[in-house]
Amino acid sequence: MEMLNEIGKRAKIAKYDVQKYTTNMKNEALVHIANKLVACSDDILKANQMDIAKAKDNGIHDGMIDRLSLSVSRIEAMAEGLKQIAELPDYVGEVTEEFSHKNGMKIKKVRVPLGVIGIIFESRPNVTADAFGLCFKSGNSVILKGGKEAIHSNIAITNVIREGLKEKNMNENAVILIENTEREVTAKFMKLKEYVDVLIPRGGAGLIKAVVENSTIPVIETGTGNCHIYVDEQADLTKAVKIINNAKTQRISVCNACESLVVHKNIVSKLMPLLTDALKHADVKFYCDNVSREYTVDAFDATEEDYKTEYLDYMLSVKTVENVEEAVNHINCYNTGHSDAIVTENNEVAEYFLNNVDAACVYVNASTRFTDGFEFGFGAEIGISTQKLHARGPMGLRELTAYKYQIVGNGEIRG
Amino acid sequence: MEMLNEIGKRAKIAKYDVQKYTTNMKNEALVHIANKLVACSDDILKANQMDIAKAKDNGIHDGMIDRLSLSVSRIEAMAEGLKQIAELPDYVGEVTEEFSHKNGMKIKKVRVPLGVIGIIFESRPNVTADAFGLCFKSGNSVILKGGKEAIHSNIAITNVIREGLKEKNMNENAVILIENTEREVTAKFMKLKEYVDVLIPRGGAGLIKAVVENSTIPVIETGTGNCHIYVDEQADLTKAVKIINNAKTQRISVCNACESLVVHKNIVSKLMPLLTDALKHADVKFYCDNVSREYTVDAFDATEEDYKTEYLDYMLSVKTVENVEEAVNHINCYNTGHSDAIVTENNEVAEYFLNNVDAACVYVNASTRFTDGFEFGFGAEIGISTQKLHARGPMGLRELTAYKYQIVGNGEIRG
Repeated sequence: MEMLNEIGKRAKIAKYDVQKYTTNMKNEALVHIANKLVACSDDILKANQMDIAKAKDNGIHDGMIDRLSLSVSRIEAMAEGLKQIAELPDYVGEVTEEFSHKNGMKIKKVRVPLGVIGIIFESRPNVTADAFGLCFKSGNSVILKGGKEAIHSNIAITNVIREGLKEKNMNENAVILIENTEREVTAKFMKLKEYVDVLIPRGGAGLIKAVVENSTIPVIETGTGNCHIYVDEQADLTKAVKIINNAKTQRISVCNACESLVVHKNIVSKLMPLLTDALKHADVKFYCDNVSREYTVDAFDATEEDYKTEYLDYMLSVKTVENVEEAVNHINCYNTGHSDAIVTENNEVAEYFLNNVDAACVYVNASTRFTDGFEFGFGAEIGISTQKLHARGPMGLRELTAYKYQIVGNGEIRG
Repeated sequence: MEMLNEIGKRAKIAKYDVQKYTTNMKNEALVHIANKLVACSDDILKANQMDIAKAKDNGIHDGMIDRLSLSVSRIEAMAEGLKQIAELPDYVGEVTEEFSHKNGMKIKKVRVPLGVIGIIFESRPNVTADAFGLCFKSGNSVILKGGKEAIHSNIAITNVIREGLKEKNMNENAVILIENTEREVTAKFMKLKEYVDVLIPRGGAGLIKAVVENSTIPVIETGTGNCHIYVDEQADLTKAVKIINNAKTQRISVCNACESLVVHKNIVSKLMPLLTDALKHADVKFYCDNVSREYTVDAFDATEEDYKTEYLDYMLSVKTVENVEEAVNHINCYNTGHSDAIVTENNEVAEYFLNNVDAACVYVNASTRFTDGFEFGFGAEIGISTQKLHARGPMGLRELTAYKYQIVGNGEIRG
């Protein structure tokens, strides 16, 4: 795939340029590009209309068309996002440790960009500007591969960014869009190890699975969230109902929404009637084990499959347990390492839960919905990592950097 | 592969046990196992004799037989290694950051074990005890897959460790050896993503490539080192010769040995005669470009392949450049992200080199041979990472941990 190799080479050259840009240069470019996106709204919207027309011809459903659609206000929001990234701290060059070898050599551990970041995403065209902004501010070049539904919009947005970079005398290859949207190109892209340092998929479980299984480039797995809330026997039920309601119904399509409830057997008879009542407004369906079903109106039987499923819908699986140990075992068996919460007034039980649940974010008496780069104060995020390596949970600008050791000696050799 | 799934399940259960062990419990177990290894020397040596006899029958070369061979003093060294690990700090549980959400929730970032670590290694049986010690001290369980040449030795060592864990009332599945050494088992092991959190290959370039290309588990790439030394026009030639001699000839088979020399054109005529003289003791062969060849006695022509090669031998490729920019570009084109050095008395040139060479460890006026966990003061190492994600350079106990966020609220929900 000659075309991909060419893209890889250009992005690799660009990474050496971008890592040299000062914070000021990067911030000015981000603001310039933000303004340019708004100024070029007409071109972008025209391209977007082509995507939407094609999507309608193909009978794509309304939800997808909404995700695809741009408007003046959505373009303004993209621009605002870039300006916010310009306001955030630049971690590149930060010395995080400094120590000496016993022979006197000085060793510094310094934050550096990751290099070339590859991002594979689905239909939202705003990811183009957003991903560029985060990668660029953290000193990386980025190769983008978006969904074919948004290809005209993505090309239009990328062109504006590249034009803006050129106007600032910067390497336009700091962002390159792969315009060929055939499946086999994506498959080859995942193996472009010679040029791409890290690959981040952004999208549904199917996309992420395909990337994890086929990439030879190191991947950061993001996004799948089979999040649990465990209600302990010593829970404050008012808090429990409020938290579950928020985590289940505030926004169903997001990875930090609650998908499964775990309930202590001594409180299940009190909790379930309160909860079914509180969740009626959203018509939530409950998939229950035998014990919890007794106290739940109109419940369905839970299967093994239910406990494994990230519903992303008004559905909730329920499991009754004997104690916090069983709750933790159940959660560690079915969760995706994203976010899990306990509701309890017992500090010892809370501590056990915090230490033993294997997830990026573990909560006591709070909603799982807080797992988010903005909520954590990172200012922005490229995604939520659900793997153990490198970064876990919300990934902001700092998580888009690596480090290197710089060692300064005076002729030292190893004995 | 039922057997592998069973191993995966047992290791996953064990990881939840090991993460609960206190530092004292882990240290006592390490010392107990160290003593037990020495006490069981006879059994281990008997098993080792079987491996050596088989290797000799198969006509395996002497170098490999040396790597395979154990002796009382080598077993004592393994035991000493475990005792040293017991002396090192335990990073598990360390709170590295603490901040509050604006709603008052407390957010802590806490170091936790990676979980289940898979290690695929080649013929050295001492890796068994070493890898167990590092993974165990950092709160992980480990699944080991060693080379078939050392299988009897590996089984004997693993049995002693497991026996020692049982005697301390700990989960013996903190270490499991895959005893089936067929190739297809290794291939399946690399896809045991449901149970294994991280995979670390330890061995030659072929093994590492196979793991990177086939694993669906996140991999830490280690070990390949095409390390460069650049001699600037303002180098102190005495330092340069001393450093190159050390980095090339002190130990040729290691990943931090120098494989390629880059020389400024204004100093090449002075450096090469001094260097050929200094390296005569080791009969180093030089593979030169046209310019450097003129000043090098008995030099060979360098091909593109030479610049790409990690010789691990008394061989050195040489490239002449116009300036530090060309040197850095050449190095970034051919290095493996391990260790590269500059020799110069010019601080500005040194600074440029430090900032722009893309490697885990970048040196000024010192030998690349220092890239090592012990030399960096980490006390021990599981390997040298050459990738960007998670850890770069020497990986000690701290690099065998991940982190999680622990969030404590009082009924907070997202607005």
